[in-house]
Amino acid sequence: MSDQPFPIVKPFLKTLSLYPENQEAPIEFIQTDTLDARLFFRRNHFSYPSLSYSNYWLPLGGSVKTPLLLSTQDLLRLPSKTLKVVLECAGDKRSFFETKVFGEQWENGAISQGIWKGISLRSLLERAGVREEAKEVIIEGYDYGERKDFDQVFTYSRSLPIEKALHSDTIIAYEYNHKPIPFKHGYPLRLIVPQWYGMASVKWIKQITVIDSHFTGPFQTVDYVYYPNKENNNEAFPVTTIHVNSTIQKPLNRDTLNTGTHEIKGIAWTGKGRVIKVEISTDNGKTWIEAEITADQSRYAWTSWSFQWTVAEKGEYTIMSRATDSYQRIQPSNPFWNRKGYGYNAIDKVMVKIE
Amino acid sequence: MSDQPFPIVKPFLKTLSLYPENQEAPIEFIQTDTLDARLFFRRNHFSYPSLSYSNYWLPLGGSVKTPLLLSTQDLLRLPSKTLKVVLECAGDKRSFFETKVFGEQWENGAISQGIWKGISLRSLLERAGVREEAKEVIIEGYDYGERKDFDQVFTYSRSLPIEKALHSDTIIAYEYNHKPIPFKHGYPLRLIVPQWYGMASVKWIKQITVIDSHFTGPFQTVDYVYYPNKENNNEAFPVTTIHVNSTIQKPLNRDTLNTGTHEIKGIAWTGKGRVIKVEISTDNGKTWIEAEITADQSRYAWTSWSFQWTVAEKGEYTIMSRATDSYQRIQPSNPFWNRKGYGYNAIDKVMVKIE
Repeated sequence: MSDQPFPIVKPFLKTLSLYPENQEAPIEFIQTDTLDARLFFRRNHFSYPSLSYSNYWLPLGGSVKTPLLLSTQDLLRLPSKTLKVVLECAGDKRSFFETKVFGEQWENGAISQGIWKGISLRSLLERAGVREEAKEVIIEGYDYGERKDFDQVFTYSRSLPIEKALHSDTIIAYEYNHKPIPFKHGYPLRLIVPQWYGMASVKWIKQITVIDSHFTGPFQTVDYVYYPNKENNNEAFPVTTIHVNSTIQKPLNRDTLNTGTHEIKGIAWTGKGRVIKVEISTDNGKTWIEAEITADQSRYAWTSWSFQWTVAEKGEYTIMSRATDSYQRIQPSNPFWNRKGYGYNAIDKVMVKIE
Repeated sequence: MSDQPFPIVKPFLKTLSLYPENQEAPIEFIQTDTLDARLFFRRNHFSYPSLSYSNYWLPLGGSVKTPLLLSTQDLLRLPSKTLKVVLECAGDKRSFFETKVFGEQWENGAISQGIWKGISLRSLLERAGVREEAKEVIIEGYDYGERKDFDQVFTYSRSLPIEKALHSDTIIAYEYNHKPIPFKHGYPLRLIVPQWYGMASVKWIKQITVIDSHFTGPFQTVDYVYYPNKENNNEAFPVTTIHVNSTIQKPLNRDTLNTGTHEIKGIAWTGKGRVIKVEISTDNGKTWIEAEITADQSRYAWTSWSFQWTVAEKGEYTIMSRATDSYQRIQPSNPFWNRKGYGYNAIDKVMVKIE
């Protein structure tokens, strides 16, 4: 006869910093392909903004024939689009670079996925009438603050090339997992840019501006730029599309297991095409075997994969996963090092001991 | 006019595993010297046990003149003792060993502190009358399960040498921070052994047995043993007293700061005597300066320390902290490597960039 209610065991976000709030998803412990908002990674550049919902209007202007001023009610009346999208921070796995870089030391949890509902940005741009000269579309968020490298206050603003802004799956979302977007994730309106790293998916949209030039805000031209050299800015180029990548969820790194059969499982994703193959190595990369992957893939979602591993001999093993996408991009053995630590996608690995 | 309630930003436990549950405290974000139970690290060897509280009795037997069988009511009637105690898991900072080891990859959060109230184990042993031949006292927990290295079920059991069991500050606790101990931390009764690593502080006490021999349970003679050699068990010796140690809470590792004055702060602790000095280096160990430490130290609690660092020159800096205790134990530059990764206490360090 026990009086103890069954104790609830659940994973939590991992805290990287509080002001601004940066916390990562416990990705090894995510068993679903749509994350509960509680476990969605939080990545902020500034403190949370303060918004007036009762007087919330979305202006869309700049190089358009008819500037728009829309209420959320207006947006709700337009045809909607619902997409399952993986969002990955460009700094995901930054802490795995062997030559360390500065910035938030994300492990493998600056990635999350769920179902976003909204209207396509394209439909608004078409209503406004984009002028011929238009080159980019700036999306400005309500969040703002000082940067350490400038003596000035900035809002978080990013631009998209006009073609990406006009892609019909670039949406202004108002729901996450069939509910209004949680405040910390951009309520009431958040841009969702499938296939691009998360910096493009601006939260708390304040205004949208079509421009005829190239936007040079600091989150466009200072941050979210690959700098291949430690000492100078030569050969720099912007962070855009998500790299092909994979993460082993099980077994856990440095786990001890018995001989026998064990499930190796995880996720794989890409910003170009689809994941067509995930290979597993249990001998530190000498030989590779294909894992089973989810047959039914949503276009912008991650793919789950698994592999039954039978191991008879005791010892230490390095397990690796390597994804390939439909553009024949494949995870490299060594990551592309860059000074700000973006886009890490080297082959994933965990070590286990069989005893 | 804003309708947005002020968003709450709070740290979480960091999840290492769920079955059994192992989660660490977000130690950089702890601003108090008594942790909210929600943020106290959770370290389990097995799944949570099931206990009958309505029929809970604590037996104390073995090599004693009068075996006892006590209700929690009996215990509450005895003179109590209240102690602020730091509990540190022997595996704390295991992931920092450069030659990696297996086991839970704790970062710096397998440590927590709060106020425990209970009765001294000594008072019970005196009531029962310990026989002359008594060598050790076994404390058995209600938690049990299989181990990977034996084909057998074990409860979590540990022994203390009779002298440590008779130390008047070794207590059977029933309150944490002035409330009944939370279930996950050992309700209704937990042993608290100040100055020893946490493995000694058995949760969910099932029974106490005085023995005339040396206890050889696997959590005494297989785990929680320092094995200095990778390939054999030569020179092994048991894990007991907490090493002198410190953790930098601020700045965060790999943070970017401006020139000017910054607070460097953290905690320091030891299992022997008191922390008498914490030194800081901001030049990767070339020079050291004393930090200010809390004057008023509880005997078994950590010490908070802080240092005002003025930095005028841009560049990369390695900040280190090094504690010394009243037994002149000092944190080493290199940790004492051992196969199971216990007792890590090398000088703590964080890297920052000043720009």
